[in-house]
Amino acid sequence: MMKVGLLGAGRIAGVHAKAITSHPKSTLVAVSDYLPEAAQKLATQYGAEIRTTEEIIADPGIDAVLIATSTDTHCDLIEAATAAGKGVLCEKPVDLSLERARVCQESAARNGKPVMIGFNRRFDPNFGALKTALEAGEIGKAELLSITSFDPAPPPVAYIKVSGGLFRDMMIHDFDMANFLMGTAPVSVLAVASSIVDPQIGAAGDVDTAVVTLTYADGRIAVIKNSRRAVYGYDQRVEVLGSDGLLQAQNMLENTVVKSTTQGVMGAKPTYFFLERYMPAYTAEWTAFVEAVTEGGPVPVSLDDGVAALAMAEAATRSAKSGQSVRLADV
Amino acid sequence: MMKVGLLGAGRIAGVHAKAITSHPKSTLVAVSDYLPEAAQKLATQYGAEIRTTEEIIADPGIDAVLIATSTDTHCDLIEAATAAGKGVLCEKPVDLSLERARVCQESAARNGKPVMIGFNRRFDPNFGALKTALEAGEIGKAELLSITSFDPAPPPVAYIKVSGGLFRDMMIHDFDMANFLMGTAPVSVLAVASSIVDPQIGAAGDVDTAVVTLTYADGRIAVIKNSRRAVYGYDQRVEVLGSDGLLQAQNMLENTVVKSTTQGVMGAKPTYFFLERYMPAYTAEWTAFVEAVTEGGPVPVSLDDGVAALAMAEAATRSAKSGQSVRLADV
Amino acid sequence: MMKVGLLGAGRIAGVHAKAITSHPKSTLVAVSDYLPEAAQKLATQYGAEIRTTEEIIADPGIDAVLIATSTDTHCDLIEAATAAGKGVLCEKPVDLSLERARVCQESAARNGKPVMIGFNRRFDPNFGALKTALEAGEIGKAELLSITSFDPAPPPVAYIKVSGGLFRDMMIHDFDMANFLMGTAPVSVLAVASSIVDPQIGAAGDVDTAVVTLTYADGRIAVIKNSRRAVYGYDQRVEVLGSDGLLQAQNMLENTVVKSTTQGVMGAKPTYFFLERYMPAYTAEWTAFVEAVTEGGPVPVSLDDGVAALAMAEAATRSAKSGQSVRLADV
Amino acid sequence: MMKVGLLGAGRIAGVHAKAITSHPKSTLVAVSDYLPEAAQKLATQYGAEIRTTEEIIADPGIDAVLIATSTDTHCDLIEAATAAGKGVLCEKPVDLSLERARVCQESAARNGKPVMIGFNRRFDPNFGALKTALEAGEIGKAELLSITSFDPAPPPVAYIKVSGGLFRDMMIHDFDMANFLMGTAPVSVLAVASSIVDPQIGAAGDVDTAVVTLTYADGRIAVIKNSRRAVYGYDQRVEVLGSDGLLQAQNMLENTVVKSTTQGVMGAKPTYFFLERYMPAYTAEWTAFVEAVTEGGPVPVSLDDGVAALAMAEAATRSAKSGQSVRLADV
Repeated sequence: MMKVGLLGAGRIAGVHAKAITSHPKSTLVAVSDYLPEAAQKLATQYGAEIRTTEEIIADPGIDAVLIATSTDTHCDLIEAATAAGKGVLCEKPVDLSLERARVCQESAARNGKPVMIGFNRRFDPNFGALKTALEAGEIGKAELLSITSFDPAPPPVAYIKVSGGLFRDMMIHDFDMANFLMGTAPVSVLAVASSIVDPQIGAAGDVDTAVVTLTYADGRIAVIKNSRRAVYGYDQRVEVLGSDGLLQAQNMLENTVVKSTTQGVMGAKPTYFFLERYMPAYTAEWTAFVEAVTEGGPVPVSLDDGVAALAMAEAATRSAKSGQSVRLADV
Repeated sequence: MMKVGLLGAGRIAGVHAKAITSHPKSTLVAVSDYLPEAAQKLATQYGAEIRTTEEIIADPGIDAVLIATSTDTHCDLIEAATAAGKGVLCEKPVDLSLERARVCQESAARNGKPVMIGFNRRFDPNFGALKTALEAGEIGKAELLSITSFDPAPPPVAYIKVSGGLFRDMMIHDFDMANFLMGTAPVSVLAVASSIVDPQIGAAGDVDTAVVTLTYADGRIAVIKNSRRAVYGYDQRVEVLGSDGLLQAQNMLENTVVKSTTQGVMGAKPTYFFLERYMPAYTAEWTAFVEAVTEGGPVPVSLDDGVAALAMAEAATRSAKSGQSVRLADV
Repeated sequence: MMKVGLLGAGRIAGVHAKAITSHPKSTLVAVSDYLPEAAQKLATQYGAEIRTTEEIIADPGIDAVLIATSTDTHCDLIEAATAAGKGVLCEKPVDLSLERARVCQESAARNGKPVMIGFNRRFDPNFGALKTALEAGEIGKAELLSITSFDPAPPPVAYIKVSGGLFRDMMIHDFDMANFLMGTAPVSVLAVASSIVDPQIGAAGDVDTAVVTLTYADGRIAVIKNSRRAVYGYDQRVEVLGSDGLLQAQNMLENTVVKSTTQGVMGAKPTYFFLERYMPAYTAEWTAFVEAVTEGGPVPVSLDDGVAALAMAEAATRSAKSGQSVRLADV
Repeated sequence: MMKVGLLGAGRIAGVHAKAITSHPKSTLVAVSDYLPEAAQKLATQYGAEIRTTEEIIADPGIDAVLIATSTDTHCDLIEAATAAGKGVLCEKPVDLSLERARVCQESAARNGKPVMIGFNRRFDPNFGALKTALEAGEIGKAELLSITSFDPAPPPVAYIKVSGGLFRDMMIHDFDMANFLMGTAPVSVLAVASSIVDPQIGAAGDVDTAVVTLTYADGRIAVIKNSRRAVYGYDQRVEVLGSDGLLQAQNMLENTVVKSTTQGVMGAKPTYFFLERYMPAYTAEWTAFVEAVTEGGPVPVSLDDGVAALAMAEAATRSAKSGQSVRLADV
């Protein structure tokens, strides 16, 4: 039985607490949060203790920690936990600073403990089925990847200001999805972005709508579209054109009811947001982590993967400013 | 906390055991089965005791029983459990004999405890959304209901022989769905049936393909189609034509991936069978039972509903033999 | 070049006039109608003469006639035209009286000229593709056929009164579709019907909503659903369950635009009515007639087919009244 | 009756000949082609004369010419025909040289006769319905446009060599579609392209896969994806994300048949190529031209529109080479 400490007690921590306690091979020992009442609530709900982060990391009886704290603490906690001999599952992004993330990457490598980054979408059964079909050669050789990734509504501007910007905060999921599906990192990044959804987002120095084009060494191309607002729900689609066909992973819908009237033929909306869409993915993610740690294999999404996605976010940020292609080798 | 005894430890009992133990207001105290090893397995998995059925019913500390035993025991157990002051959730059908079911109905009514019948499909979110839209008047007045209900593969002939026949064993779900959606029982039943899927089913005296037409006092019509074999998966669709439009609840698919090749555009199959399709419905069913029992309201699917569906099965069985319309008032 | 006389100049005659004049191997010589201005309009539009029906039939220079007059004249005109040595394409139904139609069938057989009945839906590319797949064995052996056939709105009550009733006027298309797809006539017919769409239709002695179940000698079953009103458009769907799968022909939509908003995901309605949906079918129907007549092969929809469908309408009419199964051999 | 001369007698000229001769207000007088047998074939089929291009342009009895010759002759013919007082419908692109096209634009403006460019997709009913919904504000303000435009198979390399390249030959349709839907030209163009479908295309100096991002003065963004090969058929989709929702125009399919088997749920492919998909659009295009010329209104797709799309192709060509954003004002 893997004994787990949960660092952070916010919304996403709650999702993880449920996955940890539902899994037959893991148990939630302790929760920490800088807000004691948040930690208390989760600890009570899932029968765990409330402790400080330091106590959890220092406890030799805890095998692994799940880091769901604010982004600026991720690297420190990854380093401390791996130094203490614990396995780590850390929420994305690794850090807002690529430089800091690379230092962390080296430290963790030295510590030699498994560190997995929480790119939950890799565990979505739809994207998983698409990848399986792709790898089975069902559409031949991949040539052109398209990722549509729209949030239902923008976060508060206060959050935007500390988020690191759309590329590091939101599109980082899509950069990782591109790496996952294409099986390699791109050579260069071209980004176009604007603030058109909400002028307050622009005033805060960020963008809310963006298109990024990735080019690969072998001529393949990927394009990622992001918007902070799709009023009809969480729009999460992937399609890959290959030499022998097209694969598309379409949205999950709230239900299968269709209504035909004089107005037209109306179906349900996509599931609202990540909690609705990706709940099975969070469960599968935790299962994969437990399996990797207990069986000693590689984690399916490594810290290297987290740093690779962050480098693409950095390149996209620069490209959106300069209007020029940015080579990944240059960031 | 509602203390629950589980009578029966087969496959569907396992589904219920999970729902009982996952619900915050119910706990699984004991399991019984005529096969001790089956009872033991479930008891161990969910932290319950193994006891005899008699012990469970006699235990004043147990508030409710879930009856998941063979059909021929349902009525005896409903009577005994309600006589012992317990609430009951009983799997369908109430009995194969309409006469016996009606005696049970009277006994249970005298005992005055809540008895709910496990027509799980009423709790499917898709059918629920369809009913909500229907009751909201979104397609005006309902006129013509169609239910498609195909199993992926026929059960073993040994099961067929003791099943009571397709109308009592399989279509009974659809009779209840018709009552649920139309809000009342039909006046008469016309059935056509044959054994075309598997001659062994015909040799066993049953049918495997059937179409039943229901007529209502106000002129509305419903048609139910059943087949024991749809090789592409569990085909569970409902559509209602109304004065202002059409409502359809379509199948759930295994995933949302679509592949376009020179062969055509291929999507995933429907979910395979009832465990895949209706797992959320079983959870919602249990929640509704707990709520009804603990809050004292009526159960959402009563023993009367179970008897009503059985009467329709009886009428359909007669009609399929005679080639004539059978009035429900005559069965 | 086949020289054609068009008997009748109403709406459907206009559709045929266009097909006749567009086909490279047929030319429209003359048009007749009891309303001279209607005949004149079509004659002018398509460069044909206006003549009496008798003149057209008597003209040895005319090779074929297309009968698009009122139903009560069909048999007389089929007999006269074939006696005059002409090929005939006649609109459905052959007659409202099965007895009269059978007399006509014998006369025409004696005259030995090709007579084709205008069951246009056999030429719809969607139903054609379904039949091709069925005959290629793509779903194995057919077991259960379902036909959904709803008009967008009921015709005027004045029309209803002379229509022969829903089974002879509307469902006759679906009876022919069943014969077309199942490859044989059924053994017996069970009908349920009511007037629920419009009480005036009931007052006129007709029904507006009906479900008919057909049984075949080999155990196969077909079910046909009709309604005079589907406010969202012409609902024309077919599905066949077979031993190896399911084939469905779905509706044609007005366009492919889909709109996702906070209200849901909205697509276009089905094409409105038969002129929109079946225009390509009318063209293909004419082409098949020209080919059969000029090359001497059998017509793809014979007078026998027309009489067979009429017999099923007769059986359905009786069954709906008696509540009993009616054997086709008994009508 | 508009008297029309058809310049060119290739495949697309045949499509236009049919539209011209089917329209009640236009007649095809003469056809020219540098291959006399091609001209003869069309002339015979549609009852027109065969003449030289010079004779057609010199004939004062001809009101309009349709230019369907090779691209390098377009400007000369537009200039000559408008100088001779004729209306012109010219196939795309105006020319491969933006400079030459601009000279032609000035000449034609001086001549003052209507010149329409054959961007047929504007007349597709699906894109038309999308634009209507967009302009009606059904999704609020447009923010992000995506155009997917894949051909089923690449043209011969011999054609590629004289085509002007993917941006001028193929994506020019999509540039015009972007202008049509966004209602204005973009400010800058960013292109990524590669030859991955067929190395011979790369050897010929062209690309076969490309993604172009357009930015607009008000912050809106558009992205266009092109591939020379989608083995499943002509993939022609458009989607627009707006402040209140999403509009998508999906592919037309060959038929509506869906087959469910153990392999999955299979539907028909998209219509194969432009002749299948856009035949109704060519008819509507001609109707719009006749209407504009005979009623004196502006043509719906002007020579200015043709030059605007060509400028975008020029910018994209430069951007793909430099890896930098190219401002339209700079080409």
